[in-house]
Amino acid sequence: MRFGHRKGRDTRITTHVGLVARAFGADEFILANTDAKGPLQTITDICSRWGGAEFKTGTVTNWKKAITDFQKNGGVVCHLTMYGMPLSDSLPKLQQHLGQKKNLLVFVGAEKVPSEIYDLVDFNVAVGNQPHSEVGALAVFLDRLLDGRPVEDTSRFSDAKLSIVPQEHGKKTLEKT
Amino acid sequence: MRFGHRKGRDTRITTHVGLVARAFGADEFILANTDAKGPLQTITDICSRWGGAEFKTGTVTNWKKAITDFQKNGGVVCHLTMYGMPLSDSLPKLQQHLGQKKNLLVFVGAEKVPSEIYDLVDFNVAVGNQPHSEVGALAVFLDRLLDGRPVEDTSRFSDAKLSIVPQEHGKKTLEKT
Repeated sequence: MRFGHRKGRDTRITTHVGLVARAFGADEFILANTDAKGPLQTITDICSRWGGAEFKTGTVTNWKKAITDFQKNGGVVCHLTMYGMPLSDSLPKLQQHLGQKKNLLVFVGAEKVPSEIYDLVDFNVAVGNQPHSEVGALAVFLDRLLDGRPVEDTSRFSDAKLSIVPQEHGKKTLEKT
Repeated sequence: MRFGHRKGRDTRITTHVGLVARAFGADEFILANTDAKGPLQTITDICSRWGGAEFKTGTVTNWKKAITDFQKNGGVVCHLTMYGMPLSDSLPKLQQHLGQKKNLLVFVGAEKVPSEIYDLVDFNVAVGNQPHSEVGALAVFLDRLLDGRPVEDTSRFSDAKLSIVPQEHGKKTLEKT
């Protein structure tokens, strides 16, 4: 769940957050507290060409209810923030919770998030306590949580029209006709 | 080295690339093929508040010469691209090269990069062969290359005016006076 989005200024960042979610193993990208349609359309377009039709996108207006409902249904909510606890300390605790087959919702902000989010979530996790990027934080968080598997195993994108044949030099794509 | 930057549209992405470079262990951020000043100013401001005065920023206009000069001086150049070879296969080869104390330049594009870059660089590396984000790709690449150390060991930021005391819930910063 990406919270907030300033039109124009945030368009590409929000799109990148969604594409990172898709590439690094999330099932769904939810945009909260904005009526921006552009980023979701871009992600849907990419799914239709590059596969992963099962990847869902959506919006919520009442983000607080969405989070508490998710928790009531047994899900765990983790907020990525530079003010949180270090990633390496947090991951084992989080994995212990998730071991019981609970669902995980990862919450990332735009520049400002409501202060109540820090108390509402189950974990506040810092991918480093330095300012950098919600895109980078989400990518590294998912990469470490899932042991790098989603970028290696791309079988979930096997419905793709377009796919890449990795090259040492140059570009090669295959197109399904 | 970040290649290209479309004013307005790319401002925040370029800034995020630079901040990820700083947070995940690079020594320098170079902006190529643009005269945009905003992102570099933002990064310099963050260094002055959050530490790491040794982190350098700069621009180059002749990116090709910059890359070939770097290689002539014994450096290794790695281009992050979805068309490249998988990260897990590339890392051991890259690390073998770097073991001889060579410097590394990581090249990331904006949407389009000149096709000659694929032949010019030593390695084309894919952080997954799916479209996502140069910000996410750089973060995961550096995190894996450096075994996650830079986000844990923040001693290089000890000159900071502002620092964070990690909290399970809430925000706490320390300010040096």
